[in-house]
Amino acid sequence: MVPQWIIEKKRDGAEIGPEELREFISAYSQGDLPDYQMAAFAMAVYFKGMSFEEVSVMTDAMMRSGRTLDWSSLGKPTADKHSTGGIGDKISIPLAPLAASCGCAVPMISGRGLGITGGTLDKLESIPGYSTSLSPEKFRGVLEKTGCSIIGQTDDLAPADKKLYALRDVTGTVPSIPLIASSIMSKKLAEGTGSLVLDVKCGRGAFMKTRDEAKTLARTMIAIGKSMGRRVSALITDMNEPLGKTIGNTVEIEESIRILHGEGPDDVRNLTLELAAEMLTLSGAAASREEAVSALEKSIASGRAADTFARMIEAHGGDPRIVSRPGLMPRGRFTADVPSPRSGFVAGIDADAAGRIVLLLGGGRRKVTDSIDHGVGIEQLVQRGEKISEGEPLMRIIASTAEDAQHFVSEAARIVSLCDEPPPERRIILDRIAQ
Amino acid sequence: MVPQWIIEKKRDGAEIGPEELREFISAYSQGDLPDYQMAAFAMAVYFKGMSFEEVSVMTDAMMRSGRTLDWSSLGKPTADKHSTGGIGDKISIPLAPLAASCGCAVPMISGRGLGITGGTLDKLESIPGYSTSLSPEKFRGVLEKTGCSIIGQTDDLAPADKKLYALRDVTGTVPSIPLIASSIMSKKLAEGTGSLVLDVKCGRGAFMKTRDEAKTLARTMIAIGKSMGRRVSALITDMNEPLGKTIGNTVEIEESIRILHGEGPDDVRNLTLELAAEMLTLSGAAASREEAVSALEKSIASGRAADTFARMIEAHGGDPRIVSRPGLMPRGRFTADVPSPRSGFVAGIDADAAGRIVLLLGGGRRKVTDSIDHGVGIEQLVQRGEKISEGEPLMRIIASTAEDAQHFVSEAARIVSLCDEPPPERRIILDRIAQ
Repeated sequence: MVPQWIIEKKRDGAEIGPEELREFISAYSQGDLPDYQMAAFAMAVYFKGMSFEEVSVMTDAMMRSGRTLDWSSLGKPTADKHSTGGIGDKISIPLAPLAASCGCAVPMISGRGLGITGGTLDKLESIPGYSTSLSPEKFRGVLEKTGCSIIGQTDDLAPADKKLYALRDVTGTVPSIPLIASSIMSKKLAEGTGSLVLDVKCGRGAFMKTRDEAKTLARTMIAIGKSMGRRVSALITDMNEPLGKTIGNTVEIEESIRILHGEGPDDVRNLTLELAAEMLTLSGAAASREEAVSALEKSIASGRAADTFARMIEAHGGDPRIVSRPGLMPRGRFTADVPSPRSGFVAGIDADAAGRIVLLLGGGRRKVTDSIDHGVGIEQLVQRGEKISEGEPLMRIIASTAEDAQHFVSEAARIVSLCDEPPPERRIILDRIAQ
Repeated sequence: MVPQWIIEKKRDGAEIGPEELREFISAYSQGDLPDYQMAAFAMAVYFKGMSFEEVSVMTDAMMRSGRTLDWSSLGKPTADKHSTGGIGDKISIPLAPLAASCGCAVPMISGRGLGITGGTLDKLESIPGYSTSLSPEKFRGVLEKTGCSIIGQTDDLAPADKKLYALRDVTGTVPSIPLIASSIMSKKLAEGTGSLVLDVKCGRGAFMKTRDEAKTLARTMIAIGKSMGRRVSALITDMNEPLGKTIGNTVEIEESIRILHGEGPDDVRNLTLELAAEMLTLSGAAASREEAVSALEKSIASGRAADTFARMIEAHGGDPRIVSRPGLMPRGRFTADVPSPRSGFVAGIDADAAGRIVLLLGGGRRKVTDSIDHGVGIEQLVQRGEKISEGEPLMRIIASTAEDAQHFVSEAARIVSLCDEPPPERRIILDRIAQ
């Protein structure tokens, strides 16, 4: 294999043979192929795409670059969810314990935030003591005990993907359907889940700007999963505005807890329920959507869902009391309410700009090595369709200094657009795509 | 400057501002920007191109990344030639001493082999003792003494280009007009030549596949040269088939010597004479093309051209006896004649495939760090239009092992296409473009 010939082939739009591609990925994984050749290859893929055969081979090669997990001994169906990411997307956090409380095991491997998008692991680390890095043995132990566990990607799970993901982030090669699909699926296949529900976001605040792009990505991932004998389905969901009323780390855990208590904003609650129902039916833990929804609602009402979350936190070394006392989590000492400049209806919220404010407050990272201030963020954010009077707060900024709190008020006011008539209702779930 | 934002800008087809681009190049040159970001950027440029403003800024930034030479004290016009490279293109080697023997100084800075294309420096290093790396002081000394010197790019001449050139070679980002133009011109401007003749190849065996692409590249380089006060002209030449009857390192030096003795294949001899005449007239060393050609022919006939080559070799520490005794150069111990499968006329030779065979024989490099086997290659290659009988040799393969010699015979036979009627005559020089 001559690496530059493979790069040139892709650059010229030809298909790379399965053996060549496998060798290319494996050489990269083993450190025999330098980052600069992979970066050029990734950019060529950005422009020329990949055939389904190529994406499958790439996924498989990345999956096999490390160990793969097997949950057959658990004696329960396993299901996981993956979201392509969006501002305010905390769904994984209430979803894992909720689905687990209704009979499927959830071995969830999540990521960190980068740029303006938050990460599930960073949010969970708002919980004092919660450890996101468990050994595979500990991970299994938590799953057996509580039915769910959310950890970070370990060094030995799809290491080729881990390396490529970090490279893509700094080489302008993130928004490519074959690279996104193979990255997600190699991790999820290595993780060993039997069923997988994809939440593919589209809109202003997502990588996929259009519904068609989102569907293409979803179909690619579903087909990969199918070819590897997994059950995969996808919801295409709207990401033109942030999800829920909070953006940040502690505040998003707080909102997740409200969901598990049957409270919280409609969009987050509905999407959590839909995804959980999909996980239960896909994995066979429920016979139908109706049965699944009924079980999920019962689990919330009885407190079992919230209790499962508390037990998962405890098994991860975290303080389970936060489920009833969220004030135990870190919180910025300074807040500023952002008054509405006029009366009207909320027509929309610029999700990217909201994410940027939280990043600048210290709640996100610009470089992989940055540390995060878990206590800052945005809460009580208005949502599309809400009626508001001049002077009423559009949101509350939580900051670690008084200057920061004050500094972002005028910028924050600009991210909410107002209109005189109620805007058309927002649909969160746009499509459901089955295998 | 955030490097990935610049990569993304180029990827999305936007123009990079002069300051940003200068900073990007300068960070790369100083080692503050990693190879993988430059590789992704180069691939984005491959797909999205560059404006003339961007190419100019890039050329200037690379030229200024090191020292620049000045030959005004030589008291002679200076001229150089640059070829965009092709299979079997050894023209620089006879050209430099030939032009120098007729009154213009030739300070030539050349490159190494690039993928399947050979490099002048690699070929020269077939000559025992020849050193391609001279200090600027030694370079000046050789020029003063013999009128010509061919060296490699020193670390302090356009170092940013040197680094980028090596990177492009292994990342599939060679054939991009803005990258080729800025690379060539940054070196040539730093080298300080007063006149520059460009040999821009087009055809199957060249980076520029069409005459139009070749003209665009030529015009870009001529415009850059003009904006920096240099005389630049270009010949657009055919590279559908290899140049001459040899491909490799030692064998191409052998053919170069034949040219200086007034022998060798017509295509190589004619192109060498045309380019030399262009150098002499452009630099003012000859008053007209006719005067130039007549001087050049006299120099060959009198042995002065060959003698200038011998003196240049000696000044570089090489063994000048090779000019009369080419057998002093390394040569693979095993040869295999490739018999023609049928009788007919040679309709064409796949130059790329021929280059690939020499690469695989060990005569080229896949990675920058690969070493080269100077003794291997192809010689006695038939040329378009030749009449051949079944069983007569199409070429001779020279290898360092018997297995290699045997291994490539059937592949080599396939690169020559044969037909029943004589094919149309080949024109080597297609256009001349002046400033």
